[in-house]
Amino acid sequence: MTDLLKGYTLLLASKSPRRQQLISKLGFDVEVVSIDADEDIDADVLPSDIPGILARRKSMAYSVPIADSHILLTADTLVVLDDKVLGKPSSREEAYSILSALSGKRHQVYTGVCLRAEWGSRVFTEATDVCFKNISDHEINYYLDNYEYMDKAGSYGIQEWIGMVAVERIEGDFYNVMGLPVARIYKEIVDFVKQR
Amino acid sequence: MTDLLKGYTLLLASKSPRRQQLISKLGFDVEVVSIDADEDIDADVLPSDIPGILARRKSMAYSVPIADSHILLTADTLVVLDDKVLGKPSSREEAYSILSALSGKRHQVYTGVCLRAEWGSRVFTEATDVCFKNISDHEINYYLDNYEYMDKAGSYGIQEWIGMVAVERIEGDFYNVMGLPVARIYKEIVDFVKQR
Repeated sequence: MTDLLKGYTLLLASKSPRRQQLISKLGFDVEVVSIDADEDIDADVLPSDIPGILARRKSMAYSVPIADSHILLTADTLVVLDDKVLGKPSSREEAYSILSALSGKRHQVYTGVCLRAEWGSRVFTEATDVCFKNISDHEINYYLDNYEYMDKAGSYGIQEWIGMVAVERIEGDFYNVMGLPVARIYKEIVDFVKQR
Repeated sequence: MTDLLKGYTLLLASKSPRRQQLISKLGFDVEVVSIDADEDIDADVLPSDIPGILARRKSMAYSVPIADSHILLTADTLVVLDDKVLGKPSSREEAYSILSALSGKRHQVYTGVCLRAEWGSRVFTEATDVCFKNISDHEINYYLDNYEYMDKAGSYGIQEWIGMVAVERIEGDFYNVMGLPVARIYKEIVDFVKQR
């Protein structure tokens, strides 16, 4: 980590162990905080704008004053296929139908991130294109039988079996698909701290 | 894993724990075998052709008969910048100069893979483009001080700090940059077994 960032702690508003691990590997000290925010969005908002709006809304819902050496990081990830948002599945049937829809197609993963500190805030969104090969019913069912899909936007984890077998190509940041656009976050935090 | 592949064991000719882990996550039983092959290549061979040639050469250097349920997998990875091959660094100075050269530029990672079984063989090469943001001297030195770079083509691991900070975009298979093009390997093995 650059000297510039030494002494800063990221307050990460996410229950996802994957996100916690990614931020730690980036070299930051992390404290996990809990934030509840309404996730309703007007129907006319573009899918690609939603993650940034929700990331900022989560940030604003954190009412605790932010200490001098802390940066609050909130994020929201969306999977979009043919301009339609695919959320987290609420049942095995829904996960099956999401994965069938992704088979053989290109979709987008958007992560919106909001950084907020005592001296200001910024929001940005990173997009990654993901191309699935054709996956068989047998492969989908094998995945649903053996892996955790309920907590995942788009019903898949790129770091798991289904991601390794199905994803033949991505365009953009891999880690964005895993949960956070780490290279962009690092760069934005460096800028953000310099701006202070 | 599809039923078709049950009962097969991959003989993986690689000392890399990353490669062993990737193949295991793909769902295969793995046995690691040791192969020594000459890696000299004529100077007029195109960089993109080298990994396939070396993967096949390693395969042919394995003289043990391959059992009925086994598939030998050999691979070779190359990093290419501006049509020049970047190998594994032999010193810290060389690693520094390789990473400086990658900074702010797009390079290619090629992995050649050879599958060989009792009933035949096949070779394929997967290419992934990797775009580095500008990295500072300070960031390069921080990486060289704290991470293992000597065993890595191009002096970096995309799954480590430097990869997370520097790689702003890839085009292709992420796992190919980590060591093996797993989606392609899975697909090729399914075809290979069907052809039997």
